[in-house]
Amino acid sequence: MAHARKQVRGKQLVAKVMAATIAEMARVGAEGLSIEDVAARADVNKTTIYRRWPTPHVLARQAMLCASEISSAPIDTGSLRGDLSEWAHEFRRIATSPDMQTIIRMRFGAPARGRMSALTTDLEEKKHARSRAILRRAVKRGELPRGADTELLHDVVLGALLYLVVFSRKHSDVKRLERAVRLILDGALGPSKLRSRKS
Amino acid sequence: MAHARKQVRGKQLVAKVMAATIAEMARVGAEGLSIEDVAARADVNKTTIYRRWPTPHVLARQAMLCASEISSAPIDTGSLRGDLSEWAHEFRRIATSPDMQTIIRMRFGAPARGRMSALTTDLEEKKHARSRAILRRAVKRGELPRGADTELLHDVVLGALLYLVVFSRKHSDVKRLERAVRLILDGALGPSKLRSRKS
Repeated sequence: MAHARKQVRGKQLVAKVMAATIAEMARVGAEGLSIEDVAARADVNKTTIYRRWPTPHVLARQAMLCASEISSAPIDTGSLRGDLSEWAHEFRRIATSPDMQTIIRMRFGAPARGRMSALTTDLEEKKHARSRAILRRAVKRGELPRGADTELLHDVVLGALLYLVVFSRKHSDVKRLERAVRLILDGALGPSKLRSRKS
Repeated sequence: MAHARKQVRGKQLVAKVMAATIAEMARVGAEGLSIEDVAARADVNKTTIYRRWPTPHVLARQAMLCASEISSAPIDTGSLRGDLSEWAHEFRRIATSPDMQTIIRMRFGAPARGRMSALTTDLEEKKHARSRAILRRAVKRGELPRGADTELLHDVVLGALLYLVVFSRKHSDVKRLERAVRLILDGALGPSKLRSRKS
């Protein structure tokens, strides 16, 4: 052994390996990820990684799940307005973390049908299920009209948040995000009522 | 001379070199672009390219301007609703072209402060000036309230279009885009009236 590694375990080990994985993915892409390189960067034994994350694919997925803070706790403040505001706050907090910025760039910089895209499909579905639930509950409570196109509303809010927080060169603070969300919500409650799927 | 190249001139030459430039940028990135590689791919003499586009930077910029169809003709149908609908149509047509998809991926996959980002700043400013003009005219005509936050409205529409057309895995046809734009417009005309910049 060239040098004795400090023993790290449990949460500390996981955090170290996850951080090294994201950094390696930023360097070589999802396709090029190697467990040996991650081990070297995290300064842990290869076998320690193989035991928990047997393939680069498993490792990459786990690192992305961690960074995006997939949570099973629903956003449920009791009102649509409150839920959308909380969604905006949470989105901003997570999307501006350095690891998440790396992942977002990899996802949106990658061709639509590549390895990276496949890796994030699952993750996005989990995320979106949670934000879609907000809108479904609003329909149940009667805050949105029955039969409202909640899919469209969801995609418009998500697109606005992504652009304002991640892609625009302008800085958007939380107040600006809340105003964007309110603008869209006013639209959802406005004359067209999100009802018609026809022209 | 190894082989005699067919003489291509004028528009045909420009189109060939622009296409080769985008293809090379997709392969090696904006940083790695070389005039020799572009010449080889386009099957024209290096000197032909150097004469018109003396540096890789000039070449890259020109290719991106071409692909994004920067137009100086304003979108001006006479009504805000009509203009937003035309913006959505035009956005979809241009953003779904293969060259533009490459550019968009490079732009959004690149770090915020790199060469690629610098290359597209200008281009985006030109594009956005044109779409912002739509909203300013609407304020002048009284279709949007005086003092409306047209910047926010602009960014929300743009974010929604980007997500629906480029980043979502779902297909959005023109009707869906128009419904998204109408939803946002209803919001802009709704109770908050885009007026308050305070919480």
